[in-house]
Amino acid sequence: MPQRVRFAALDLDHRHIFSQVGWLLDAGAECVGFYTAAEDLLDGFQSRFPDLPRLFDRPAVFADYSIDLIVSASRPDLRAALGIEAMLAGKDYMTDKPGFTSLEQLTEVRQVQGETGRIYSVCFSERFGVGSAVRAGQLIDEGAIGRVVQTVGLGPHRLNRPTRPDWFWDTKYYGGLINDIGSHQVDQFLFYTKSDAAEVVASQVGNFANAGDPNFEDYGDLTLRSANGTGYARMDWYTPDGLDTWGDGRITILGTDGYMELRKYIDIAGRAGTDHLFLVNNQGTSYVDCSAVSLPYAAALLHDIEHRTETAMSQQHCFLASELALIAQAKATRLGPPPGDGS
Amino acid sequence: MPQRVRFAALDLDHRHIFSQVGWLLDAGAECVGFYTAAEDLLDGFQSRFPDLPRLFDRPAVFADYSIDLIVSASRPDLRAALGIEAMLAGKDYMTDKPGFTSLEQLTEVRQVQGETGRIYSVCFSERFGVGSAVRAGQLIDEGAIGRVVQTVGLGPHRLNRPTRPDWFWDTKYYGGLINDIGSHQVDQFLFYTKSDAAEVVASQVGNFANAGDPNFEDYGDLTLRSANGTGYARMDWYTPDGLDTWGDGRITILGTDGYMELRKYIDIAGRAGTDHLFLVNNQGTSYVDCSAVSLPYAAALLHDIEHRTETAMSQQHCFLASELALIAQAKATRLGPPPGDGS
Repeated sequence: MPQRVRFAALDLDHRHIFSQVGWLLDAGAECVGFYTAAEDLLDGFQSRFPDLPRLFDRPAVFADYSIDLIVSASRPDLRAALGIEAMLAGKDYMTDKPGFTSLEQLTEVRQVQGETGRIYSVCFSERFGVGSAVRAGQLIDEGAIGRVVQTVGLGPHRLNRPTRPDWFWDTKYYGGLINDIGSHQVDQFLFYTKSDAAEVVASQVGNFANAGDPNFEDYGDLTLRSANGTGYARMDWYTPDGLDTWGDGRITILGTDGYMELRKYIDIAGRAGTDHLFLVNNQGTSYVDCSAVSLPYAAALLHDIEHRTETAMSQQHCFLASELALIAQAKATRLGPPPGDGS
Repeated sequence: MPQRVRFAALDLDHRHIFSQVGWLLDAGAECVGFYTAAEDLLDGFQSRFPDLPRLFDRPAVFADYSIDLIVSASRPDLRAALGIEAMLAGKDYMTDKPGFTSLEQLTEVRQVQGETGRIYSVCFSERFGVGSAVRAGQLIDEGAIGRVVQTVGLGPHRLNRPTRPDWFWDTKYYGGLINDIGSHQVDQFLFYTKSDAAEVVASQVGNFANAGDPNFEDYGDLTLRSANGTGYARMDWYTPDGLDTWGDGRITILGTDGYMELRKYIDIAGRAGTDHLFLVNNQGTSYVDCSAVSLPYAAALLHDIEHRTETAMSQQHCFLASELALIAQAKATRLGPPPGDGS
């Protein structure tokens, strides 16, 4: 019987770490504990994972050869440096998205990853953690909608102002909205269109509703193109209080012989629960409940760690999705507030 | 009591003429008859409108001073010339969209319209003829979603190959997919964002599924930007046979304080009927049945004809929507079939 993969959770700045750790534990990995600065300890982490010991010697984590994997949701601009530190210490790395906040970070990580052969996995949770997103990929492979020629992703998020740390409000710490939330969208475009190269056609960012936070972006969109098809995505921080969840995330996947719509987190004024997939093709129109679809990412990553494979996500895809989001962010046209808005 | 507006229907090349004529009759106008070339007489037109006399003297229609309005769904590339002929004869004009197939046509029509003061109205039926689209505009005016900052429109259509005339398959006759179906989308972007100027950020056209018709476009998208917000729209001819209507047309209207989604013609695997509007704002999430919303376009146009007003649509808006669609079409990147597609 193979040894269980051992991991440590370092730097818990975003609540995505809850699912990153939870999925790995569910998939059979062993967590040796977590390390984070006192001020960054997230509410509820210890009650959610009462058995995880808190670690106080950070260098000892990197020195411990029995630890295979570092998992982190650190402040976004620090994620690349932490990954490099992990890889140079011989460990694989799984980080919350965005995995980078600059193209320079990506260049350096690519080099270290190439030299060390370690895994640098960005956890694109809007696909890896969503049953309908997983099922959509399977249906495409089964030929359910013919050749995929376009994706449209809508990624609205709730601002939740009181819960946000200071770094949330300044693009220099998270790299901008397209880099942050948009990297999910680029990942999905590449995945569903099976593209291993693509270009940014156009991109835009704006701040229409939070003029008091001038270094924040609350609106972004981008258009992508590959040899296989095109993609558009919009992301924003406008989820209104009257929605029963944090965001009405959607993906519409257009094929030459049908299409799918994913209502990932809510079916507004419709069915209860999450993970609603609608399939329309030449055979008919059907609803597919994906709430019980199993999520392969964590188990596949553990397999990759053990067998040095790329079943969870290819390293090339991970870097490409991140790179396109960074490029789209860098070249985005900045939209000002509309005329007459004096706030 | 004012005299009823009198109109004639000329050149019936597209079935949109059914609703154009029907709405005017319902709004109280009087139709003096229809003229069309024998080979263009649409199946069912005479059984739908059995009381309308067929006219055989085309010049007499233009010479008849009692006729206020010419209504047409001619071959798209002929619409501008017909409108000019009508305006020069002192008549107003309502045409199926697209109203133009080239920027040169638009320039000439603008000049003649300015000189004659006649109305050149392009019937953007995906707004004028859709209760949910009308209601959405009212809800915006009532402040239901705050400031509109973006629209996303999806305009899939069924190909219905056997029913299509020869001109359908060659962009030179209809001006390309963005010009044709996209002009609806531009109209809605301008209307919902209340924009009286805008620019084309990016646009793309392709033919992914109909390689046997090399002069046809079955895919198009465009991104627009104005001082008030941004817009994206995708249009295609891929509606699969398993959908119960011709297209799953959607508009999502994003505001700073809420959003609306219009499922115009079908709510897939959901509610029966048409004109479904979903409203999410700070007060809650609600479904708004718009199937009984009245459509003001035809009555407003008759009012405009009588009183020389612009209540149905401003002439400037009509020309701007058409112009942006033509520009987006002209500058669109042409996408080839994906690699390995030898069909």
